[in-house]
Amino acid sequence: MPWYQLDDANDPKLDELAKQYNLHPLHLEDARTHDESVMVDSGAAYTFAVFKPVRLIPDPDNPGEQMPSFSPIDIFAGKDFLITISDPTCPTTEQALARARRDGDDEHPAKLVSLILDTIVDLYFPAIDHFDDRIDQLEDKVFDDPSPEILQSVFAIKRELIDLRRVLVNTRDASLHLQRDPNTIIDAENQPYVRDTYDHVARLLDSVETQRDLLNNTLDIYLSSVSNRTNEVVKVLTILGTVALPAIAISGIYGMNLKGLPFEESPHGAEWIIGITILLTALLLYFLRRMNWL
Amino acid sequence: MPWYQLDDANDPKLDELAKQYNLHPLHLEDARTHDESVMVDSGAAYTFAVFKPVRLIPDPDNPGEQMPSFSPIDIFAGKDFLITISDPTCPTTEQALARARRDGDDEHPAKLVSLILDTIVDLYFPAIDHFDDRIDQLEDKVFDDPSPEILQSVFAIKRELIDLRRVLVNTRDASLHLQRDPNTIIDAENQPYVRDTYDHVARLLDSVETQRDLLNNTLDIYLSSVSNRTNEVVKVLTILGTVALPAIAISGIYGMNLKGLPFEESPHGAEWIIGITILLTALLLYFLRRMNWL
Amino acid sequence: MPWYQLDDANDPKLDELAKQYNLHPLHLEDARTHDESVMVDSGAAYTFAVFKPVRLIPDPDNPGEQMPSFSPIDIFAGKDFLITISDPTCPTTEQALARARRDGDDEHPAKLVSLILDTIVDLYFPAIDHFDDRIDQLEDKVFDDPSPEILQSVFAIKRELIDLRRVLVNTRDASLHLQRDPNTIIDAENQPYVRDTYDHVARLLDSVETQRDLLNNTLDIYLSSVSNRTNEVVKVLTILGTVALPAIAISGIYGMNLKGLPFEESPHGAEWIIGITILLTALLLYFLRRMNWL
Amino acid sequence: MPWYQLDDANDPKLDELAKQYNLHPLHLEDARTHDESVMVDSGAAYTFAVFKPVRLIPDPDNPGEQMPSFSPIDIFAGKDFLITISDPTCPTTEQALARARRDGDDEHPAKLVSLILDTIVDLYFPAIDHFDDRIDQLEDKVFDDPSPEILQSVFAIKRELIDLRRVLVNTRDASLHLQRDPNTIIDAENQPYVRDTYDHVARLLDSVETQRDLLNNTLDIYLSSVSNRTNEVVKVLTILGTVALPAIAISGIYGMNLKGLPFEESPHGAEWIIGITILLTALLLYFLRRMNWL
Amino acid sequence: MPWYQLDDANDPKLDELAKQYNLHPLHLEDARTHDESVMVDSGAAYTFAVFKPVRLIPDPDNPGEQMPSFSPIDIFAGKDFLITISDPTCPTTEQALARARRDGDDEHPAKLVSLILDTIVDLYFPAIDHFDDRIDQLEDKVFDDPSPEILQSVFAIKRELIDLRRVLVNTRDASLHLQRDPNTIIDAENQPYVRDTYDHVARLLDSVETQRDLLNNTLDIYLSSVSNRTNEVVKVLTILGTVALPAIAISGIYGMNLKGLPFEESPHGAEWIIGITILLTALLLYFLRRMNWL
Repeated sequence: MPWYQLDDANDPKLDELAKQYNLHPLHLEDARTHDESVMVDSGAAYTFAVFKPVRLIPDPDNPGEQMPSFSPIDIFAGKDFLITISDPTCPTTEQALARARRDGDDEHPAKLVSLILDTIVDLYFPAIDHFDDRIDQLEDKVFDDPSPEILQSVFAIKRELIDLRRVLVNTRDASLHLQRDPNTIIDAENQPYVRDTYDHVARLLDSVETQRDLLNNTLDIYLSSVSNRTNEVVKVLTILGTVALPAIAISGIYGMNLKGLPFEESPHGAEWIIGITILLTALLLYFLRRMNWL
Repeated sequence: MPWYQLDDANDPKLDELAKQYNLHPLHLEDARTHDESVMVDSGAAYTFAVFKPVRLIPDPDNPGEQMPSFSPIDIFAGKDFLITISDPTCPTTEQALARARRDGDDEHPAKLVSLILDTIVDLYFPAIDHFDDRIDQLEDKVFDDPSPEILQSVFAIKRELIDLRRVLVNTRDASLHLQRDPNTIIDAENQPYVRDTYDHVARLLDSVETQRDLLNNTLDIYLSSVSNRTNEVVKVLTILGTVALPAIAISGIYGMNLKGLPFEESPHGAEWIIGITILLTALLLYFLRRMNWL
Repeated sequence: MPWYQLDDANDPKLDELAKQYNLHPLHLEDARTHDESVMVDSGAAYTFAVFKPVRLIPDPDNPGEQMPSFSPIDIFAGKDFLITISDPTCPTTEQALARARRDGDDEHPAKLVSLILDTIVDLYFPAIDHFDDRIDQLEDKVFDDPSPEILQSVFAIKRELIDLRRVLVNTRDASLHLQRDPNTIIDAENQPYVRDTYDHVARLLDSVETQRDLLNNTLDIYLSSVSNRTNEVVKVLTILGTVALPAIAISGIYGMNLKGLPFEESPHGAEWIIGITILLTALLLYFLRRMNWL
Repeated sequence: MPWYQLDDANDPKLDELAKQYNLHPLHLEDARTHDESVMVDSGAAYTFAVFKPVRLIPDPDNPGEQMPSFSPIDIFAGKDFLITISDPTCPTTEQALARARRDGDDEHPAKLVSLILDTIVDLYFPAIDHFDDRIDQLEDKVFDDPSPEILQSVFAIKRELIDLRRVLVNTRDASLHLQRDPNTIIDAENQPYVRDTYDHVARLLDSVETQRDLLNNTLDIYLSSVSNRTNEVVKVLTILGTVALPAIAISGIYGMNLKGLPFEESPHGAEWIIGITILLTALLLYFLRRMNWL
Repeated sequence: MPWYQLDDANDPKLDELAKQYNLHPLHLEDARTHDESVMVDSGAAYTFAVFKPVRLIPDPDNPGEQMPSFSPIDIFAGKDFLITISDPTCPTTEQALARARRDGDDEHPAKLVSLILDTIVDLYFPAIDHFDDRIDQLEDKVFDDPSPEILQSVFAIKRELIDLRRVLVNTRDASLHLQRDPNTIIDAENQPYVRDTYDHVARLLDSVETQRDLLNNTLDIYLSSVSNRTNEVVKVLTILGTVALPAIAISGIYGMNLKGLPFEESPHGAEWIIGITILLTALLLYFLRRMNWL
């Protein structure tokens, strides 16, 4: 059975194969658009599938961090042929194809497709673990030092999880389709593998939900820290104001060009007045503390 | 087979056609009300459908921005006639009708209706892309400069998405009805097209949900930035207060008309006192910083 | 066929009719309680229904505003009798009964009940439109002038929507019951009308959901405006503090009864010192602005 | 048919009855644990049910307020025996048992169980009305005087509603079980009563949801009031600062021991300077107001 | 019937048993990975199950507190053999195995598995009670003294509940699988036990939901307390400012080196001026209070 591996959906070879195996023009068009979605469409003659393997690439916006990147693989699987189209520079796709070549059997395209899908889904786990690590780090940092950079990371991860979740939801629907659709290339023998894949994707989606919960926790911690710190700073300001008030009032009084103030002529006037000021300040602070206002 | 295209539901020609083809008065009434909803109603003799093609028009409130606008198309599709009523100035509707005329077959109204619906749904994608672009811009801006204008844009887009989502939900229900209802004009041959349309609308709705998530993220970023900036500004105010406190207290003391203050008679008194003030200020700032209060 | 219209469920006439037509005591009790819920209960002999037509009355708490008010109508519809109990001063109920009398057929209680329900549901639309208008007004005002009155209106409308939504949900369930229950008075001929009613109620509920979304938007806008304005006011306060600081420090220094200050004896001392103060203030403001702290 | 009423599940009489009627040890254990959940379990020989009637007791934490309290009733209902175990000091349970004794028929335990359940469910309505009243009071107060005590009440009611809701959800499930389970003691004749109970519990749960919505509204109102008041207070502080600024600056200037200030020697100098200060203050306030900063 | 208990999945004895009983390599791999999920997989020959018993261990981050810890148990249950793999130092697992040994019957692995699962689920209740106690304590403390430590505890418990909830959801799915799957080892006789387990897990999950609600309440209380306290502190600051304003203005005026001020020469000038200042301060405070600005 022939297995054609193309590196690019725009390869004119695909047009030849389309003619030879009667591929539907709509599927060709799908394979050639940018931004394809994960999907499976089964016709009488063959099953057309698009998957989106993930790999971690350096994040251009956050030096030192990694982010998930998806590069699609298109599969046309008939009873007696297999066409795969994928970017040969993506290590995830290459790993999936290599395992299919090693463990699969060239006479059974259903087995090959199951193996490719299984490897692709298994390789989502490192991406999820990567997010787990980053969220753990953020949670540790947010209590110690709630800086706006943490917020940026929270929202960056949230955004990446939205994309990842969409790919996973579509992959779950696709593997459900492969189980249920009577036309699908997957035969009874390979059904358990696809069912296993479905379970894995469901668990991955569960993890993504947990991660969203944890990110929301982190966000709540951050926001409550900011309110808390504002409260602390305003309290400091109020204590400063409390300390300043008697000094302002009393030094103001004695700074006036008026007559008749006590101690005005006393040789130890300054000492008396400063003593009274300090006493008043202490009393005021004690009173505010007592009233639970500070 | 005759295809009547009317520009306005109030055209008296519609009344003639209603008599000729036995159109239901309720459907005429629906076609003539403002603010129709997307819907499909299939009777024994014909299928009545209302769709709402979208186009982007300049937003009167935000010069330089575009907003989606909907102009309805009413369709009466019988086995041997087709009546379409649409605003001829709407380019989206015109494009849908033009494609139906070009690719359709005058003897098969089911094909014509499928083509019109398919074109209408395909033309929702640019509107979604338009929102994607605007949300991307907002996300970029909100971190750099969280101004209230961003907030206005967030809520404006939220409102537009509410409208778009409602139209899409109704379109999804309408295409489901066209698939399931036994009376519908759509025959088995054209079912795959309607099913494809249904998938596209489902994906569009998925995108709208993602966009709502992203807008909520942007809103959270904005709100946390405002709290953060308030915190920053209060901190600056407190630092100013800290700097002012020793100056106020000491200059107050020496401004008093009292006797017995140290350095009062010293020729370098001012220098000593200013030096002491600066030293106290520095100590106070260091102490507050040390206590993590600033 | 006799049609009895009573103005009050406590009318002793109802007891006579109950005896004559074998009405269930539980239904009588329901009709006579205050605060009945919308419901339909179908027995072998007759269908008992409670609906809650809406009308807009002046809002006692908000002069110049209107609010929805519900006055129930009780219906006992048997094969050969119809009993309706409703407040004759409610224009909505009167309109429903008048239309039933005009378009209905005295021999078909099913038709009469369908017409009454249809009119009642159609008259919910003005109430929804009324809320749409008020929410539009609030949205316009909240950006220009976010006052606490807007908040009060938001919560007042939210509360009214909770009530309206509950009535609509129960009406939807009641019309579903009228479609599905084998005992119901509604015959096959009148089923399409009830189905149409069901669709209208579903659309009304959809509008209520949209309105709740919009109110939540308005609330978010209000809250973010308040934070924003606090931020602005604190900023003004900080600028005042910044302007005051050099004046306080320098005038304090020169107000001290000390010797050895520069310019103390200069004839243009005041000018020099004021100039230096203004310069320092400008530098401080520039520095804070530069550091993005204001 | 014997009906045994025990006051305490630890009564040794229960062990005798257990032996006589072959009661399951698991059920005995359930009846004897504290903190039983509402449940129904039907075996071949008898139905075991736990309900939780509610009554209002004085709230120990809020003098003058009432709170719901639950005291369980255990029922073993066989074809030819009925055992009820309930606290004789609970008026709600007593009322339920009294009504069963009065309206029931000793030969039909199904009728007795239906009556007991019906009374228990009817007596939830006063508890719900009690919450309605308290929430109404809170809503009235929160606009006039948003004090932290309101917040405490909101959260206290929220917590009580969580408990009430759990009991109601379990009661709904129990009455569904009594309708559906083929082994249940409830015969066809008494099914309508249980169905009616189910409808009542569903309506009670609907009310609890509405009350949670209203409490969330009250919470939102409280929180927005606090932000609003902070904003108001900061505004007052800023106005004070604005008023103080020219006085501080100008009196500072004229307090300096310098020469060359205008009006210094003028006999009406003080009047001029005070006039200029007031004028500057007014201009500053006008300017800030104009710029919409206050 | 042999029952093999291994302490570690890496025991080479497991490989022997795998060969003897034809265990699936995928199951061996699962048993040997870290971080297994709760799951049940039934094949023709045996049922493979992973459960996660909980126990409370001292929390390393919070001295004096406890936290739940999970140590998995793997079960291979065939018709004529039972293999259990569990950490012998975990008291929960030991208790489950001990009860199975005592109450079970060596010839019925189904009974043994039911007993193990039942004990494991029963031992989740103390963990839930533990959280109930901690949440109660937090709720008591948050009103009296809303410190950031409470917040840390809230989020720590939230995180632990996320983990516990995930284990419970999987356990619920596993016990559903044991009820429904035709291949499962659980025979009709033991079905009621598994059904009972399912009910318990559902109730546990219900409690976890309630606890999440209560934690959200606590978080809301904390956040509103912080806003409230900020408001209080700002109010104190504003009162200080109000008190300072007349003193600053009047002492400033009389501190100026100007002529023509009233009382300047009066022997009781100081008394007059101080009296006027106090009066003005009182009037200002009264006015602000009257305007409801403080």
